[in-house]
Amino acid sequence: MIAKCLYHPVMATEPPRAESVCVGSELLSGRVDTHTAHLARRLKEASLTLARSTTVPDDLAAIRDAVSAAAARSAVVIVSGGLGPTFDDLTREATAAAFGRALAYKPALYSRILRRYARYQLKVPANNKRQAFLIEGARALDNPHGSAPGQRLRAPGGALVYLLPGPPAEMHPMFDRRVLPELARRFARDGKAAARVFRFYGLAEAACDQRLAPVLKDFPEFSFTILADLGLVELHACGPSSPALARLERRVASAMGAAYYSRDGETFPAAVGTALKRRGWRLATAESCTGGTLAGALTSAPGSSEWFLGGAVAYSNALKTLLLGVPEGLLAAHGAVSAECARAMAAGARERFGSDASIAVTGIAGPGGGTKAKPVGLVHIAVSVPGRTESAQRVFPGDREQVRRRSVAFSLGLLRELASASLP
Amino acid sequence: MIAKCLYHPVMATEPPRAESVCVGSELLSGRVDTHTAHLARRLKEASLTLARSTTVPDDLAAIRDAVSAAAARSAVVIVSGGLGPTFDDLTREATAAAFGRALAYKPALYSRILRRYARYQLKVPANNKRQAFLIEGARALDNPHGSAPGQRLRAPGGALVYLLPGPPAEMHPMFDRRVLPELARRFARDGKAAARVFRFYGLAEAACDQRLAPVLKDFPEFSFTILADLGLVELHACGPSSPALARLERRVASAMGAAYYSRDGETFPAAVGTALKRRGWRLATAESCTGGTLAGALTSAPGSSEWFLGGAVAYSNALKTLLLGVPEGLLAAHGAVSAECARAMAAGARERFGSDASIAVTGIAGPGGGTKAKPVGLVHIAVSVPGRTESAQRVFPGDREQVRRRSVAFSLGLLRELASASLP
Repeated sequence: MIAKCLYHPVMATEPPRAESVCVGSELLSGRVDTHTAHLARRLKEASLTLARSTTVPDDLAAIRDAVSAAAARSAVVIVSGGLGPTFDDLTREATAAAFGRALAYKPALYSRILRRYARYQLKVPANNKRQAFLIEGARALDNPHGSAPGQRLRAPGGALVYLLPGPPAEMHPMFDRRVLPELARRFARDGKAAARVFRFYGLAEAACDQRLAPVLKDFPEFSFTILADLGLVELHACGPSSPALARLERRVASAMGAAYYSRDGETFPAAVGTALKRRGWRLATAESCTGGTLAGALTSAPGSSEWFLGGAVAYSNALKTLLLGVPEGLLAAHGAVSAECARAMAAGARERFGSDASIAVTGIAGPGGGTKAKPVGLVHIAVSVPGRTESAQRVFPGDREQVRRRSVAFSLGLLRELASASLP
Repeated sequence: MIAKCLYHPVMATEPPRAESVCVGSELLSGRVDTHTAHLARRLKEASLTLARSTTVPDDLAAIRDAVSAAAARSAVVIVSGGLGPTFDDLTREATAAAFGRALAYKPALYSRILRRYARYQLKVPANNKRQAFLIEGARALDNPHGSAPGQRLRAPGGALVYLLPGPPAEMHPMFDRRVLPELARRFARDGKAAARVFRFYGLAEAACDQRLAPVLKDFPEFSFTILADLGLVELHACGPSSPALARLERRVASAMGAAYYSRDGETFPAAVGTALKRRGWRLATAESCTGGTLAGALTSAPGSSEWFLGGAVAYSNALKTLLLGVPEGLLAAHGAVSAECARAMAAGARERFGSDASIAVTGIAGPGGGTKAKPVGLVHIAVSVPGRTESAQRVFPGDREQVRRRSVAFSLGLLRELASASLP
């Protein structure tokens, strides 16, 4: 993923700074940090700039020094991790020490934690009371996805400091629901800064850049970032809300045409689902090399059962014949990795599963199995919709996972194109 | 994911500290940093501890302060990013400023850069001469994958400081080939530190902890970290290589028994595949709520076609009947989310797809579709192997993605248990 800051407007006053402090020895032992990227994207919505991110191990002095330095530099500090129940969860103690505050046990908070364990019939771990200690002057923040409550306090110098749990599945929703609205109320310019993510498919990053440049220069009150990942390109815009945002949306839509698929966080599979629903089409899949990841991507969209019936993962040739009716003679003549096989799989899925549309993918994801004629990365894709079947062949670069991910994105793009086209 | 440092041996001398400084506004605008994780893993091989990582924007003062603070705290500082040719590539200037050094243009270095452009028939970007400025006292480091050379210098306090380019495809190989060998020569204990990851399934983190504790305390020359993620637990060990490592492996294996599935990076799906191959069993899947992600996980393992035939994503009830032979009466009587349906799906997959073993998953991943009797997170799983069928029911916590991921891990665990058990 490559990112560029296209435009940094010169503000009348510098936007207030936020910092993130990520606590956890695992982040310094090989685990990738996703908190910083998440915070960076969301803080813009509250007109805050993420000015620095510091990662420290589960070490009291290191956490204390990092939190105290961040609070001295910035208006908002988001500390994540180290709120668990065990001896090495030290964020509470370290933050209390950073600001010279005491920690106090809160029985009511502990009751709330115990109720959560009871609801999920989980055993209460030893030392769990540690999670019910609040820093003097702090307010507890509910954690709907885990046992560790967060905390919110004001540092002596005035900085707002939030302590949030480390697991992304807990931290991200908690930040989005409990912290961000409060920060937006306090910091968003005009009380209504807006962030919007526009998503594109089917154009390379450089081509998106070229088409977007003349539009973006007309919106100096916004800041923009472009991110690209395996064929999907995102434009992040942050600035005042309507009417400028509505004007920006219209200009982006007209500049990008069919490549523009989402303006409000809708994922690519969900956008494909929306296009199918508009048609009243129901979809089935027939996968070989993607091995279920295409169906997995489609069903990642909540409510996908409205437009997705299911599919076959026909990894072996025998299952291609049994489940999808691909003739054995065709497999013998052309091989499983062929346009003929992809088209037969797509036709079989529509007929046998009773769907209106189908996608079929067959290829060589690697690392083994490549030949000179059919190298690793060769993928045949067929998409069938009422009245039309299209097939395509690509040699995708990258490793096994990348070839599979690119195959999924490409085949979804082809279906979306056919679902959006006016049919003959 | 939760991590704990179980054991930090008290060394005769503390292991030397390294720090990473990641430069780039994109890293504070939503791009995920992979440098820190890469450095953390590799630095262990040179017996260095990554003690902190700081991310700063393309801002001269911020880079200067971060580099200078890191060099004051640590023996080694790896600065990545900001070495490109454009106006916002400021790492050279900022590092020179941090140590009060001058920057000097090196014609020989520029010739080398130009030769690289010529070799790849690339256009030389404007301002490219900026990349040929060396910090006073620094040595240039060749960059085989890009135009920006690195730099290596010694800070006034003695710290070794490396400047490396930002793109991971340039930075990672450059670090591995040019920097790590030098660090290992200088810092590695006995010149042969080893890192190993042990993986476990089927025991909660606390239970792993309890079983491992008596083993790990007998290896004071190693440092250990435990990571847990949705039911999978990892133990990272770093210390001298054989024979101590071989002894550690034997002790871990005997303490953890069947829960111990990988000592060399084998993923859980691949380990399940290994267990199936040992039995000579071939597998098929029958998925509803996991929607293809179970098959997708299995086929993420290279060579999975040796033991995985394929499966059905039977998202609609009609496909459960059509593809898997689940009787309509059963669906009417018990519903699709029931033990009866899971067992029928598993039986149908084995019979119809001609496999030896099968996994079936049906449940309510959410966010919609839950009722009081069948809440979101309720999942029924059935695993069928020759002579035996087991089913299980769980209410998994978390959002749609988590429920699906936990269902996949749980069902793989159940299959592995049956494949490893001695059959009646």
